[in-house]
Amino acid sequence: MRATMIHGAKDVRLADIADAGLRHPTDAVVRVVAACVCGSDLWGYRGVSPTERPRRIGHEFVGVVEEVGAEVRTVKPGDFVIAPFAVSDGDCVHCRNGVHTSCVRGGYWGGKSADGEDIDGAQAEYVVAPFADGTLVATPSMPDPAMVPSLLSLSDVMGTGHHAALAAGVGPGSTVAVVGDGAVGLCATLAASRLGAERIIVMSRHAARQEVARRFGATDIVTERGDDGAARVRELLGGIGASAVLECVGTKESMQQSLDSARPGGRVGYVGVPAGGPELPVAQLFRNNIGVAGGVAPVRAYIPELLADVLAGKINPGLVFDAEYPLADVADAYAAMDAREVIKPLLRP
Amino acid sequence: MRATMIHGAKDVRLADIADAGLRHPTDAVVRVVAACVCGSDLWGYRGVSPTERPRRIGHEFVGVVEEVGAEVRTVKPGDFVIAPFAVSDGDCVHCRNGVHTSCVRGGYWGGKSADGEDIDGAQAEYVVAPFADGTLVATPSMPDPAMVPSLLSLSDVMGTGHHAALAAGVGPGSTVAVVGDGAVGLCATLAASRLGAERIIVMSRHAARQEVARRFGATDIVTERGDDGAARVRELLGGIGASAVLECVGTKESMQQSLDSARPGGRVGYVGVPAGGPELPVAQLFRNNIGVAGGVAPVRAYIPELLADVLAGKINPGLVFDAEYPLADVADAYAAMDAREVIKPLLRP
Repeated sequence: MRATMIHGAKDVRLADIADAGLRHPTDAVVRVVAACVCGSDLWGYRGVSPTERPRRIGHEFVGVVEEVGAEVRTVKPGDFVIAPFAVSDGDCVHCRNGVHTSCVRGGYWGGKSADGEDIDGAQAEYVVAPFADGTLVATPSMPDPAMVPSLLSLSDVMGTGHHAALAAGVGPGSTVAVVGDGAVGLCATLAASRLGAERIIVMSRHAARQEVARRFGATDIVTERGDDGAARVRELLGGIGASAVLECVGTKESMQQSLDSARPGGRVGYVGVPAGGPELPVAQLFRNNIGVAGGVAPVRAYIPELLADVLAGKINPGLVFDAEYPLADVADAYAAMDAREVIKPLLRP
Repeated sequence: MRATMIHGAKDVRLADIADAGLRHPTDAVVRVVAACVCGSDLWGYRGVSPTERPRRIGHEFVGVVEEVGAEVRTVKPGDFVIAPFAVSDGDCVHCRNGVHTSCVRGGYWGGKSADGEDIDGAQAEYVVAPFADGTLVATPSMPDPAMVPSLLSLSDVMGTGHHAALAAGVGPGSTVAVVGDGAVGLCATLAASRLGAERIIVMSRHAARQEVARRFGATDIVTERGDDGAARVRELLGGIGASAVLECVGTKESMQQSLDSARPGGRVGYVGVPAGGPELPVAQLFRNNIGVAGGVAPVRAYIPELLADVLAGKINPGLVFDAEYPLADVADAYAAMDAREVIKPLLRP
């Protein structure tokens, strides 16, 4: 079988590797129908995170179950399944608390489990899914192929955007600013709209992304950045700023812009992986009663709720996939995403 | 009339000053029935915050209205009133949002208004209350004198503890850790109990404070501090930590202990004035999905709700006042609080 390996900066290639097979009785083997490239995959691709040894990469996929281990109960061969970006056993204390990303036995695709075992990367023809009952969510029936991009978005970006919106307390009447116009920022826009926000300002300078943002419910687009961007958000929102800011970038600058865009008593929901560990200025937070919440999104917890809306045609987060590549051209998909030529590339094995 | 002035480190004295009189038609003159010393008053007393010129001090009081300006509508002479620690006009956008501490025209007792006018300190015989309609809350009738301490606690510590609990999302079933056994930490304990927390662990080494904590609903007392304290909280709470941590100290160490005491997906509600501006470690927050919210408490927003419970005898936050001084002995009250000989001293003009 073929699987994508990252070897180092700008070096992502398909390799022929041994066929996927069950390793544990709780595993499932999944034939990948669609995978994709994530902004966080670019960290390794750009060399920001060093690649110490060649490894499989990719953490978002949907597919069809081929085989299950003896202890798997909730998915069966032939099921179409959505894999959240983190593996989780589904029954540890953190999973029961809805924080599947803190699962005591889990890990990330392309990384290691808590036990130190390699977990397959998802940009491949097949993936072995650990803790299949805890990790995978099966759709009620085989979905229409046109729905695959939206289902794939539930692996990460839509659930992550939803997490940002929940963390920021978005609800009916909220005034929202979204910092970041990548797939997560756009999905956060859709999540805010879905949760009833009254006003949604999206920071974006890219026509194609602005268009998706509008379709996802953005009421205003702001092209300024940094201090100017925050000032413009405050100006648009009664001079005081947003009740909820969704930080979907993860740099010190984007976080500061987010804090500066929040009104007193407001909340910043952040899901941008903090690059370089920017610290939060507690004196500013304290003075203005601005809360900060979020983190690595437990998307597994959100799939059932979001899946229902996708299947009902209420939301179409798959619009964030604006380019499609055969898996053989995975290197091109990375290059296009790195150059910001595409919002998010979908891969077809 | 007599009023407390701070002149510098360890130098707090009564002074004879001009009698209080209306300055604006929105003012009320209040005869102080009880005031008190706050942990934050010690910043100036200890010289941590320099006192550039002698000024009035104290920001918590209850009293009886003596005189009101022509535009005052909601309080009248003879009313018993509670003054929150911040002045607020009650009708700016932030006050309408419930964030009275960000009032565009407000300020703090003993400080300056947004317009740069001095605002009276509260450790005095009389206080001129700006924006009396926005700032003061009258009780429905003259309260029983035994209730005065609890009513006075609504000026600051009880509302501030309540803010910490709300910011941390405390509700039925919450598992709570309270960091800080001063009056605010104790009131946060009471607030958590009132909001239905299932388990409340209070960090304290002082028998008298532990006793009040127990009466306020603490289920467990932990005497360890720092890493050991956080480890003990995690051990008591299923190995994972608290769903809500109430940070009521304001040092870098207490914040770190709080973050380390929170379970993945948990929230830290903080009301300790950040001493020296400790920054928050965003990578730890992100990885564990720990939210941080709180700040300078808009206690004005909480007085009606908490007052109802005080008047109904459901809560008795006045227990935090474990010593009473005549105003003439205000210097002794500061010294006792500075030495941690008392939890919170009440002053009687």
